Amino acid sequence: MIEMRKEYLQKQYRGYIDCLNKQDWSRLGHYVADGVQRNGEVLGLAGYREMLEGDFASIPDLSFKIDFIVSEPPYVAARLLFDCTPKGDLFGLPVNGKRVSFAENVFYRFADEKIETVWSVIDQAAIEAQL
Amino acid sequence: MIEMRKEYLQKQYRGYIDCLNKQDWSRLGHYVADGVQRNGEVLGLAGYREMLEGDFASIPDLSFKIDFIVSEPPYVAARLLFDCTPKGDLFGLPVNGKRVSFAENVFYRFADEKIETVWSVIDQAAIEAQL
Repeated sequence: MIEMRKEYLQKQYRGYIDCLNKQDWSRLGHYVADGVQRNGEVLGLAGYREMLEGDFASIPDLSFKIDFIVSEPPYVAARLLFDCTPKGDLFGLPVNGKRVSFAENVFYRFADEKIETVWSVIDQAAIEAQL
Repeated sequence: MIEMRKEYLQKQYRGYIDCLNKQDWSRLGHYVADGVQRNGEVLGLAGYREMLEGDFASIPDLSFKIDFIVSEPPYVAARLLFDCTPKGDLFGLPVNGKRVSFAENVFYRFADEKIETVWSVIDQAAIEAQL
């Protein structure tokens, strides 16, 4: 039973990443809870979508690649890899169209099969080292 | 069987954190593999210990606090919390004895019950925001 739930969360998480990569925002509510929190801030589904739309606006070739997933219900942890060319500043760093590679180590807690809490840390030092 | 291994890795990981907090370096090889790699660099057990000793030298009140663990053999993922007063620079930031709080999102892959690979990202932006 526990194993099945784990498989389900992994599948749900891969669906979430696919939804982001397709920028299929109408499906976002299938994966993300209405009251979603990220790094201690209540964004809500609308705010979360706004954040993601902003990410794609500043990084037109943004793509989320899963390096690996560690799952133990109700948590999923993922190492995500990015290889992209942000237009202007990224996290306050003057990237200005340079191609950069970096990782994100991120935890999600699911409730009722949707992401309700996100703890994300992005490797900004790696970006800085590439500028 | 899988569940038991998961419990074992969690126990082993908590033992590792306890070992760090006690700076009991003679026990480190019980938790960390001889050829340990961290963020793509082969440190080896001696290099890993050197890194940790350096951390405690620059941050005399360093203490590793586990926020939560997500484990799925052979991986353990942890969110670690720090609340400390680094003496000089920390990750290139002029902390100089100010008290700062920050998190680390970190993944470990175990082999033969020891940590063989570490992928760590520290929330440096949080530190910067506190200076």
